[in-house]
Amino acid sequence: MTPASADTHLRETQVESQQVYKGHFLDVRRDVVRLPNGRTSQREYIVHPGAVMVVPILDDGRLVVERQYRYPLGHVILEFPAGKLDAGEAPLLCGIRELQEETGYSAKEWARAGILHNAIAYSTEGIEVWFARGLSLGERKLDDGEFLDVSIASVAELNLSARRGELTDAKTLIGLNWFQLWVAGAWDVTWQATDMPMAVHGTP
Amino acid sequence: MTPASADTHLRETQVESQQVYKGHFLDVRRDVVRLPNGRTSQREYIVHPGAVMVVPILDDGRLVVERQYRYPLGHVILEFPAGKLDAGEAPLLCGIRELQEETGYSAKEWARAGILHNAIAYSTEGIEVWFARGLSLGERKLDDGEFLDVSIASVAELNLSARRGELTDAKTLIGLNWFQLWVAGAWDVTWQATDMPMAVHGTP
Repeated sequence: MTPASADTHLRETQVESQQVYKGHFLDVRRDVVRLPNGRTSQREYIVHPGAVMVVPILDDGRLVVERQYRYPLGHVILEFPAGKLDAGEAPLLCGIRELQEETGYSAKEWARAGILHNAIAYSTEGIEVWFARGLSLGERKLDDGEFLDVSIASVAELNLSARRGELTDAKTLIGLNWFQLWVAGAWDVTWQATDMPMAVHGTP
Repeated sequence: MTPASADTHLRETQVESQQVYKGHFLDVRRDVVRLPNGRTSQREYIVHPGAVMVVPILDDGRLVVERQYRYPLGHVILEFPAGKLDAGEAPLLCGIRELQEETGYSAKEWARAGILHNAIAYSTEGIEVWFARGLSLGERKLDDGEFLDVSIASVAELNLSARRGELTDAKTLIGLNWFQLWVAGAWDVTWQATDMPMAVHGTP
């Protein structure tokens, strides 16, 4: 809406950066930044590799969803299949891999719907959203220690869950919305045929 | 969609919990959890106080938005006004406070639209979304070191920004969607009149 060159009065620049925690999963940084007024402040955030979420579309228009226990929230969450990018992994290959691992489905055609940023105050994470259609069911291969239920839901059921406050996962709400916009002709995507079993099985 | 009592085969239980980093903003935990199969694993996550986002609705149907530099992403983000809950703060009071501090607007009527969870793998954060209408403009009171531009946009303009991939903030995409569903009669909310200047000004 406004060109990026107009943003100098808002921009913060890095003075120094420190890794303050590195765990199995989280990489936490604390940076000193220079504010637009010349003073300094601190910014704490997570460095995240990015993730991919898949909206798996069955031939009858219903969608494949998961129910997974999300420990930080302490309850089971209804969501579309998703996972973190492996180092150097292309988003499409990540989507193919996560869909197969978590649900057992593979898809004939894929289309990138967009990207969302889910925690802009404290994470570098971006989640690419992909549509997948032409689904066929095979064997799922859950990661060790991964437990989730796969089920099938209509758009009407998912909309009802959202209105009731049962579907609260941000990426899933957005994927569901973009899918409906696409069905309505208000969200353009470009489909590509995909048949890369070697690429899928070659990924750890 | 499925009763919570059916979730025992998915549930993880805390074995121990450790705070591994406590900064100015981030509180990071690493817990040992017992998995459904009896084995243990680790979960790393951020304890977050929760947040409130406001969809500020002008009488002509346009919405008040902000452009703010988000350091983890390295660029300016288009978003609705939002902020973290202070300790013990009611979400509505947080919404009133953040709207006034960041934009200068106060609202005659408020309605809770719902809650979303934006980083279910690694944060306890929930963001309550509130609609605000009957807006009048006063003075804004930015926090020290807070820099942001306030502007006004139509729903059509915001939808176009979303389709172009310029509007990528998850909470804002969801608020924009819920607002349009409400306008279309497909998202029920209950409006309440609010006139609590003391509560607003009395909050730090």
